[in-house]
Amino acid sequence: MVDIATRVYNHKWKIDPIVRSLIDTDFYKLLMCQSVFRNKPDAQVTFSLINRTKTIRLADIVDEGVLREQLDHVRSLRLSRGESTWLRGNMFYGKRQMFRSDFMEWFEKLQLPAYHLEKVDGQYELTFEGSWPEVMLWEIAALSILMELRSRAVLKGMGKFELQVLYARAMTKLWEKIERLREVENLNVADFGTRRRHSFMWQDWCVQAMHEGLGDRFNGTSNCLIAMRREVEAIGTNAHELPMVYSALADSDEELAQAPYQVLADWQEEHDSNLLIMLPDTYGTEGFLERAPEWLDKWTGIRIDSGDPATGAEMAINWWKSRGQDPREKRIIFSDGLDDRKIIELANQFTGRVRVGFGWGTMLTNDFRGLVPDDALAPFSLVCKAVSANGRPTVKLSDNPRKAMGPADEIARYKRVFGVGDQTEMEVVV
Amino acid sequence: MVDIATRVYNHKWKIDPIVRSLIDTDFYKLLMCQSVFRNKPDAQVTFSLINRTKTIRLADIVDEGVLREQLDHVRSLRLSRGESTWLRGNMFYGKRQMFRSDFMEWFEKLQLPAYHLEKVDGQYELTFEGSWPEVMLWEIAALSILMELRSRAVLKGMGKFELQVLYARAMTKLWEKIERLREVENLNVADFGTRRRHSFMWQDWCVQAMHEGLGDRFNGTSNCLIAMRREVEAIGTNAHELPMVYSALADSDEELAQAPYQVLADWQEEHDSNLLIMLPDTYGTEGFLERAPEWLDKWTGIRIDSGDPATGAEMAINWWKSRGQDPREKRIIFSDGLDDRKIIELANQFTGRVRVGFGWGTMLTNDFRGLVPDDALAPFSLVCKAVSANGRPTVKLSDNPRKAMGPADEIARYKRVFGVGDQTEMEVVV
Repeated sequence: MVDIATRVYNHKWKIDPIVRSLIDTDFYKLLMCQSVFRNKPDAQVTFSLINRTKTIRLADIVDEGVLREQLDHVRSLRLSRGESTWLRGNMFYGKRQMFRSDFMEWFEKLQLPAYHLEKVDGQYELTFEGSWPEVMLWEIAALSILMELRSRAVLKGMGKFELQVLYARAMTKLWEKIERLREVENLNVADFGTRRRHSFMWQDWCVQAMHEGLGDRFNGTSNCLIAMRREVEAIGTNAHELPMVYSALADSDEELAQAPYQVLADWQEEHDSNLLIMLPDTYGTEGFLERAPEWLDKWTGIRIDSGDPATGAEMAINWWKSRGQDPREKRIIFSDGLDDRKIIELANQFTGRVRVGFGWGTMLTNDFRGLVPDDALAPFSLVCKAVSANGRPTVKLSDNPRKAMGPADEIARYKRVFGVGDQTEMEVVV
Repeated sequence: MVDIATRVYNHKWKIDPIVRSLIDTDFYKLLMCQSVFRNKPDAQVTFSLINRTKTIRLADIVDEGVLREQLDHVRSLRLSRGESTWLRGNMFYGKRQMFRSDFMEWFEKLQLPAYHLEKVDGQYELTFEGSWPEVMLWEIAALSILMELRSRAVLKGMGKFELQVLYARAMTKLWEKIERLREVENLNVADFGTRRRHSFMWQDWCVQAMHEGLGDRFNGTSNCLIAMRREVEAIGTNAHELPMVYSALADSDEELAQAPYQVLADWQEEHDSNLLIMLPDTYGTEGFLERAPEWLDKWTGIRIDSGDPATGAEMAINWWKSRGQDPREKRIIFSDGLDDRKIIELANQFTGRVRVGFGWGTMLTNDFRGLVPDDALAPFSLVCKAVSANGRPTVKLSDNPRKAMGPADEIARYKRVFGVGDQTEMEVVV
């Protein structure tokens, strides 16, 4: 029995939308959005797409008209009733009503602001301007659209069985990773791969495979839409965006020095327990921990997102000890450049000494390396960052100078204010 | 849009039939059936299932009730109108009306005869008795049912994604073989894998993948149902069954010595060109060729189905030369124990010296080796053979004594009549 209606319906699509929901985004974006909506609703922020992998000339690969259609489609999206119900009623991190009514009412009316797009030198300059809580929700949509349009462009010429075998290979590859991870006792791993996923459907497959293959070693996904549909936990806390914008808004060096802590002071007014995870590396982990106010000793954990992860974790453990805390009651979330072998190595090194969690990103949801000629599906380093706030440029230093961003003079000023000296350069793993 | 009707329809199946059509069988079975229908319609023949891999205790793995349901389902099948139309109207080996009207009228009314099933020592004794043209059509159905029930038994405990990854791995494995075969110029390979396939759906996938991946290097499939549905060539000529039964029916040693040639004399009354492929190994290739009547020099080719294939091919080439024939105008079909590397090796050795074709069986449609624990899906050596005709036992010697079958005294008599001396034992590759 052919379902004629479905067939006809599919055939009359104008486009095949990549982002089909405002909650096809990372959970921490919504947590941060609520925090920003409460604390800095009027800050005018600009987000900009940055392709760190210059050799991939996105504007030559992805058609501009097709890109505009996808971006326009995102602007046509509104929070649906079911999505709103889920956000209002679901338990997140053990808590109901995580999202306040005033925020939800605002979110239900939200349309994402306009975008600005041009081609320069084989790359797309794609920027979004607007009030911070509105414009920040473009980040994940823009990234996942560009990643998937690139995938589609590469897949276009392939035969039906060639395609099936491509996905068969990718499935096998992921399953072998899952089989290796299954051997790790007390593993806690979550999907953080929305932003640089191969495609939505592939991420959805990966999450389900992790769920079946790892059982309760799999903690959930950062992707709200997939978490809702597949009934798994939505996972995430906060990102560099908060200290970057708070810092750009600071009116003096003294305010700047305090900005990263002000972010967390605002954060803890709303959250507790497993959501009290600090991200210390925006302007150097070492200085951040040294100067941290006493109340940060009580926070639950730290996310390590740049630099050598073992070094960062040892630094955190020593810091907790120096502050009279028991590291075994603290949590470290690793989220930078992970793949299964790195996860196993770090789990072996730190489990028992501290509570360990992993936010596994690109190599979970986009490991198509080696599967097509010229490695044309290998993931690449695309980001979408807040580049200015109220007209002032943002700065990020991180624990890896290759991840630093901002104007040179401002980088120098931030290094002075935050006392950042020499740093070790490390290759950026997507 | 959920297709409710399809869902409900699927759910109310009593069983999921493995063989759903009387033409889900090898094309050569139908060619032979027509020949037998014409020449030996009244011979009473018994077919029997033989599991050469004793370590696989089929009766412990496959439930008897389920097996009976599948066998009963085959007895409920009749040739459908569309199947009959295809057999009557399709072009096979460049010829229309391959199947005569009297045969088709008989086939349209055919119901397969009863079966006899018991469990002995962890194996199934499954036999079929009846007039030769009717009973012979059980062979492929019985084999593919038992192979697939064994697959189903092993797959039963697996999770949804585990299953998907299992097939992903099998697909990848086959595709890698196809990629290697794609490098071989002037390759001619066909699917001969119906009898020991993993499952019908998997064979169907393999045929389509070969079609896309190899283009015109893929010649077609032995499976008539798949050939019809996928619009590829139906491939096959004749099998050991013919000389085995003709020989059992012989009333004297003199008649016995002539029986294998009588098969081919009957055959060439109906067929020409690429269907004139002799199968010389039933009672030893060497003696068969030495004593072959002159008219066999003109036949198009030889199928090598036991013994060392290169040795057999050299023997055939020398024989043609000794008979004043140009081997470059002759065809050799290799069909025993093939996998991609063996195919490539033989193609490199013989292409240019002779026309070469490959009938690739079990390792095409059932290479699940190494994909599940204890290798529980590895193919095994199951056959279903004519064991007697008009009450007399059949005998097969082949070019590999491990493939020999029949009572010891009859084997001795056949060896004497056909002048078969020492033979080299070779491992039987399924």
